[in-house]
Amino acid sequence: MSELSPTERSTIHRGRKRAVTDRDALHAVLDAGLICHLAFVADGAPVVLPTGYGRHGDTLYLHGSTGAASLRAAGAGAEICVNVTLLDGIVYSRAVFHFSANYRSAVVHGQAEPVTGREEKLAALRVITEHLAPGSWDYAREPNQRELAATAVLALDLTEAAVKIRTGPPGDEPEDLDRPTWAGWLPLHRSWGTPRDCPLLPDGVAVPAHVTGRPAPDQDTRDSATG
Amino acid sequence: MSELSPTERSTIHRGRKRAVTDRDALHAVLDAGLICHLAFVADGAPVVLPTGYGRHGDTLYLHGSTGAASLRAAGAGAEICVNVTLLDGIVYSRAVFHFSANYRSAVVHGQAEPVTGREEKLAALRVITEHLAPGSWDYAREPNQRELAATAVLALDLTEAAVKIRTGPPGDEPEDLDRPTWAGWLPLHRSWGTPRDCPLLPDGVAVPAHVTGRPAPDQDTRDSATG
Repeated sequence: MSELSPTERSTIHRGRKRAVTDRDALHAVLDAGLICHLAFVADGAPVVLPTGYGRHGDTLYLHGSTGAASLRAAGAGAEICVNVTLLDGIVYSRAVFHFSANYRSAVVHGQAEPVTGREEKLAALRVITEHLAPGSWDYAREPNQRELAATAVLALDLTEAAVKIRTGPPGDEPEDLDRPTWAGWLPLHRSWGTPRDCPLLPDGVAVPAHVTGRPAPDQDTRDSATG
Repeated sequence: MSELSPTERSTIHRGRKRAVTDRDALHAVLDAGLICHLAFVADGAPVVLPTGYGRHGDTLYLHGSTGAASLRAAGAGAEICVNVTLLDGIVYSRAVFHFSANYRSAVVHGQAEPVTGREEKLAALRVITEHLAPGSWDYAREPNQRELAATAVLALDLTEAAVKIRTGPPGDEPEDLDRPTWAGWLPLHRSWGTPRDCPLLPDGVAVPAHVTGRPAPDQDTRDSATG
């Protein structure tokens, strides 16, 4: 497992015991998320918006309309920051001060590179589509020339990244432990509902297996951890 | 219902039909979220991190350790941006180009004001705690002087904000509608698991009603909408 980058801004100063420094953990968080939060600077002020993404190796792909201000701002060689956070539960402590959340969070810093070649763009869009909706790239119609031109794709290298994971019970003060106050954590789960048909669907088109059989979103397998 | 702000950066240019311009919708999204994403600029580059928050009226409160770089950067009168996004489902379309997500997303821009007075700080922390873990402020031990001093609290006015909501089926091209390709959406639900006891809990301390009876996280009541 390779170490994550050690630059100043990607070094976790708060809660260092929660920092995870191997690349497999970074990949796992990015793969478990469904959307990311993309931050960029516009007119000197920060902006953060939800965005679709996908990961291939140590590259994160983002996409959006070529008309979107976020993609334009982020694509001009400017610095961006991407965060993927999975909230795994709420931590109830004996003291208000120690209330917290269990979560897995990945932060990536860097300059996004526009993906422009036709084959590269199609490959990146396949990664993003398969992340959002596995099994869909080979099932749905591929982008045509016009659609491809209307889609901006960015590549972000995962070199400068940090992962922070919190699991288990609260970190109360020793003097509070005897209080008759309940403390623990309430896990948060994500699940898929029943697929809903588009009202314009022709008769007889069934929900495909890659939708009905889509694996449940990654649960916090660390629910039972005490760390 | 008052209109949300009309400044350039809070005006939604993409997918304008998805923009929601009343303040009740903004409050509803902020109240349904559990954590927010806080973006700030550090050394000229954007940073986005997950953060706890709570809303009271048209003020959003954020908190963190006084040692956290994010709270320091955001508290010095600098511009910040907060995003709360609830992912409600994945939208499967007939064409890869139209894959999307159903979501509710709120973006707030502004300068955060540090909350410093003891009473104001306690009131803000109550708002944040009750947002994260309803019923906990009166149940758990209040912050003492040392804990209060170690907690940074910021207030962000909700004046400059935008809400974007997407629901229902994909927006496929007319020429694709006859394809024998399934299209629709897969709702994503959030639910609480079974409360887990802190291993250090004294015998006989039961899980309180505000935890066992915590209402399910807001589901997308618009699952069945077609708009």
